[in-house]
Amino acid sequence: MNQALQDILKQEPRIAGLTAKETGVDIRVVVRESSAERSQAVIQKIEKTVRERLGDAVYGVDGQEMAEVVGALLKQRRLRLSVAESCTGGMIGSRITEIAGSSDYFDRAAVVYSNDSKTAMLGVPKELIEKHGAVSSEVAAAMAQGIRRSSGTDIGIAATGIAGPGNESEEKPVGLVYIGLASSDGVKTNEFRFLGTRAQIRLKTSQMALDMVRRHLIG
Amino acid sequence: MNQALQDILKQEPRIAGLTAKETGVDIRVVVRESSAERSQAVIQKIEKTVRERLGDAVYGVDGQEMAEVVGALLKQRRLRLSVAESCTGGMIGSRITEIAGSSDYFDRAAVVYSNDSKTAMLGVPKELIEKHGAVSSEVAAAMAQGIRRSSGTDIGIAATGIAGPGNESEEKPVGLVYIGLASSDGVKTNEFRFLGTRAQIRLKTSQMALDMVRRHLIG
Repeated sequence: MNQALQDILKQEPRIAGLTAKETGVDIRVVVRESSAERSQAVIQKIEKTVRERLGDAVYGVDGQEMAEVVGALLKQRRLRLSVAESCTGGMIGSRITEIAGSSDYFDRAAVVYSNDSKTAMLGVPKELIEKHGAVSSEVAAAMAQGIRRSSGTDIGIAATGIAGPGNESEEKPVGLVYIGLASSDGVKTNEFRFLGTRAQIRLKTSQMALDMVRRHLIG
Repeated sequence: MNQALQDILKQEPRIAGLTAKETGVDIRVVVRESSAERSQAVIQKIEKTVRERLGDAVYGVDGQEMAEVVGALLKQRRLRLSVAESCTGGMIGSRITEIAGSSDYFDRAAVVYSNDSKTAMLGVPKELIEKHGAVSSEVAAAMAQGIRRSSGTDIGIAATGIAGPGNESEEKPVGLVYIGLASSDGVKTNEFRFLGTRAQIRLKTSQMALDMVRRHLIG
């Protein structure tokens, strides 16, 4: 992705700059044409070039937020979402519900901070947590399936990770995060290794969880 | 409270100003003494005056966050907390878990956005919701008791409200929020009528929920 960004910077001089944030990269385009219409047309051409190069990684234009994009897709497809979250502590649900009208597609979230709550609220087997650890691909998958099943929603998204500081081990460092997505297609999980502070790791986790829902919906 | 703030502004010229925020009011004190020790002593005297006038409303000094203060109190008293939240969508849990080490006192949160989830996750009777509405003192109380019971924690805090825009009625306007707190003392609820945007109402709700836990702990 870094190479692709560098390529489009070279290729298109009207891309004025990139800003890297926890939630993605802003691409700023500056166009000076003789009229607003002409400017708009040129911007659209540049957007097309960027999308061709970056593909699905482009999640919004004009400062659209990820939660807004995911919400619009869910609404369009008449699908409902539920969330199971550990290290983010409620941030994924909070970001989804920042959007007015989110009750149309968001049902509930289980914030399962303790291991007991993972078992009681989501039916994650105690033995699974003991065998693989709460921060594992297996537990992320069970959390996603658990919240999807108990809520009866179309999609269940789950995140478990080590936001730090502390609680790490050689095998499981701070920043290790697993995100699981359950749907009628079954369950899939992704592993991430984020860098940064506790706040940054939590924000990145919530962003990647929403992005996994987005990619599932457009996939 | 406004009167009390105006009084201390007049009474103490070294209070340089007040800043009102969604999460409270910052009181800035500027002192110029001949040494750091003398300055510190004068600041402590002013802090004492402010506390005498404002009492329990003072929740922290030196920019301490509410979640930090509540966390320290819970840890000190070896009590555990769980959360049930509707209009805040996970923000209360997210703010509590911003603090590293919060797993010592935070167990879980149920984000019950749909009415079905209030019944399924917290055992709030369907009839109670039908009779009083999801945004009511009765449902806030049942949510707090429900999460306390199911989690087995010492304290359960719950919030339900109308963050808007939309979904309001003459009887239940945007900004109407009920917060419930369940403990071994029983359950109590407070009604709030917040002004502002959706984001402001949600933030104020999360702040008042945390503050209700704080006041319970120091009360």
